Amino acid sequence: MNGNQESVDHKFQRRALQVSEAQARITEVANVLEFEDVPLNQSCGRYLAERVIAPHPFPAFNRSGMDGFALQAADIKNCGNGNRVWLEIVDNIPCGAVSTVEITTGTAARIMTGAQVPEGADTVVMLEVTETRVTAGITYVGISKKQDAKRNITPRGQELSQGDLVLPAGGMISAGEIAVLAAFGMDMVKVHRRPKVGIFATGTELLEVHEPLQPGKIRNSNSPMLEALVRETGGEPIMLGAIVDDLELARGKLKLAMENYDFVITTGGVSVGDYDIMGDLVREQSGDMLFNKVTMRPGSVTTAAVREGKLLLALSGNPGACFVGFQLFARPVIGLMQGAAQPFLPEWTATLGADYPKVNNYTRFVRARLEIREGSLYAFPATLDESSVMVTIKDSDCLIIVPPEERGLTAGAKVTVLKLPGEIRG
Amino acid sequence: MNGNQESVDHKFQRRALQVSEAQARITEVANVLEFEDVPLNQSCGRYLAERVIAPHPFPAFNRSGMDGFALQAADIKNCGNGNRVWLEIVDNIPCGAVSTVEITTGTAARIMTGAQVPEGADTVVMLEVTETRVTAGITYVGISKKQDAKRNITPRGQELSQGDLVLPAGGMISAGEIAVLAAFGMDMVKVHRRPKVGIFATGTELLEVHEPLQPGKIRNSNSPMLEALVRETGGEPIMLGAIVDDLELARGKLKLAMENYDFVITTGGVSVGDYDIMGDLVREQSGDMLFNKVTMRPGSVTTAAVREGKLLLALSGNPGACFVGFQLFARPVIGLMQGAAQPFLPEWTATLGADYPKVNNYTRFVRARLEIREGSLYAFPATLDESSVMVTIKDSDCLIIVPPEERGLTAGAKVTVLKLPGEIRG
Repeated sequence: MNGNQESVDHKFQRRALQVSEAQARITEVANVLEFEDVPLNQSCGRYLAERVIAPHPFPAFNRSGMDGFALQAADIKNCGNGNRVWLEIVDNIPCGAVSTVEITTGTAARIMTGAQVPEGADTVVMLEVTETRVTAGITYVGISKKQDAKRNITPRGQELSQGDLVLPAGGMISAGEIAVLAAFGMDMVKVHRRPKVGIFATGTELLEVHEPLQPGKIRNSNSPMLEALVRETGGEPIMLGAIVDDLELARGKLKLAMENYDFVITTGGVSVGDYDIMGDLVREQSGDMLFNKVTMRPGSVTTAAVREGKLLLALSGNPGACFVGFQLFARPVIGLMQGAAQPFLPEWTATLGADYPKVNNYTRFVRARLEIREGSLYAFPATLDESSVMVTIKDSDCLIIVPPEERGLTAGAKVTVLKLPGEIRG
Repeated sequence: MNGNQESVDHKFQRRALQVSEAQARITEVANVLEFEDVPLNQSCGRYLAERVIAPHPFPAFNRSGMDGFALQAADIKNCGNGNRVWLEIVDNIPCGAVSTVEITTGTAARIMTGAQVPEGADTVVMLEVTETRVTAGITYVGISKKQDAKRNITPRGQELSQGDLVLPAGGMISAGEIAVLAAFGMDMVKVHRRPKVGIFATGTELLEVHEPLQPGKIRNSNSPMLEALVRETGGEPIMLGAIVDDLELARGKLKLAMENYDFVITTGGVSVGDYDIMGDLVREQSGDMLFNKVTMRPGSVTTAAVREGKLLLALSGNPGACFVGFQLFARPVIGLMQGAAQPFLPEWTATLGADYPKVNNYTRFVRARLEIREGSLYAFPATLDESSVMVTIKDSDCLIIVPPEERGLTAGAKVTVLKLPGEIRG
């Protein structure tokens, strides 16, 4: 199957693809971008371009887990029941120091939590259960309880051996990864650069956010939403404004955007009306179209094309459809460009929390809110989930997938949900 | 109960507080910071300082949901069964335009998706089921099927009426909120400023991340981790480095930090050893101590103080304890300073996925990984969860709360978990 076959000359007769097929087509041409090295403290939210192998064991030395005394367990094996042993204190080992004194039978070293256990010692007795005395100028520690070897000592390599896989390639870096990378001395991190994503809107009805409302017009809310979504996904949004419905203007804008950025996302102009210029633009160069109809609601008119290796995703101007289209198609593209190992939304099973009576001929992606109740996951569909509806986007943390064969769903049904990024709000 | 009573002069005899009491003490003195106005496109991740009320209905006009023809439903009520009606096309309404022609019986207007429905029309018939003809220079649209009033028209105010509460104060702003704020023309957003959080570490054993490993020493991984956590929580981290275990040095550093920043977080020096300088510093000014022992593992030595209204949180130097202490105490403080309505970690019930045999005298916060299986939430405890362990932080998306009375837990038990920020990894 190639792109030409799906391109037909009549606007109403687009060949519809399944969502999974459309996703496969667009992600297939999403290429991972070049490497770059970023400082560790700027690497949060990026994806590791290479796996990380432990360059040394961690911890790198036998470490005391207590403030106390390092000694030989054999020396105190008869302690207890009033039987106390006194050991000569031969060293005092703070953190960061290395003792030059070997612990032999009858001796002990004062040691701090986190310090390297001296040679010869095989156990650390906590400070709180010891006492000290000075006899003839020599200080002794008294121990009244026996204790096994290895107690309160974290052995070299307990967490990781040299050569262990620490972090796989393609994983996102957050605070826990930062700690590991820091511990292994990696103050620069190799990642793939962020894609530059050009964003513009089409529609003569669009006002800038700061403009006063005018009759028949609406403020352009999709562009700022897409900007936030691109940034959240790790891309670098470049805002190219909104243009009126003019084919020439749009053609120029699109050409410029495709030349200068890694990925172009537009909103508006993909429907079947007289002013649906993005649809026209893609149709006129049919060879590079990936799809222009998807069997989904909202956003069936979502359109994608590739031109000289650059991707265009033309989303609906309806806010709900624009949002869903971004999550299904733009998010994996932006993730893959950064080398993300798992660029798609996680798919979970949940229990439907309320009836969803609507019947569809296409698969529906219903905005919904998740809740964890007594260890079970519930999804509550938004009361307003039409393509044109904007206000419920903010209340949604998942999309319920309602297949076309469903004849309405009742509360309690098992449903598949796509988890949206961010915290569960319920 | 006041702070003085808990402060005792012997290091070993700290008075331990329950986690909830310690949280109450530290959050009680966390004050919300001043207002500032930020541009909408910089507001993601911030918390709304004021609720948002709809300044106008949304949508602001009756909007066509289809490309087609706006007309009066009464004119086509007899259509169907071969009965077709022809209406004169009196206008063509693109998006953003306002028709000056009122639709009367026998007339229709061509209209685009998203355009304002003209006066007099009460339904929109989709383009795909119409035909047109020209007779004597006049263009007519033919309709062969009846359709009720209100079809394909989104009424003014469908999503929000003027005066409706759109967004509550204290909610976090993400892409969906951005869309709403944009739609209502709010290109500047009132938020509370981000707290400046001074971070330093104490410990003679600490190397900088870029330094080669030395015997007995470790790289400072807690500071970069805390930096990432503070940023993730919306704070502005100021990195003050690491100092050796020297009381005078620490006193000076702390004084400077408390004077210059909104909140100071330290790591290390709070245990009972000879070099536990942060503990000493807080004890020497006992009047402002909030707590210096909490009945929790890891991190029982977590210490907090307030001085001239500024908060100090002294976390353990053990990575696991440092991480848990941040999540329980620093996160709500940083959230509250920004006016977050829900600054604490969400608490969920989950099913334990594997045995957890350890027995504790204190409540344990066990690092764990969540998984959704068939609509149920499972928590798998990390195999290494000691205070000193760093490597499992990255694999954890929740903390299982194991109360002290538990005598070990078996797989299948119901447990309470605190959800950590970020995506569920399972």
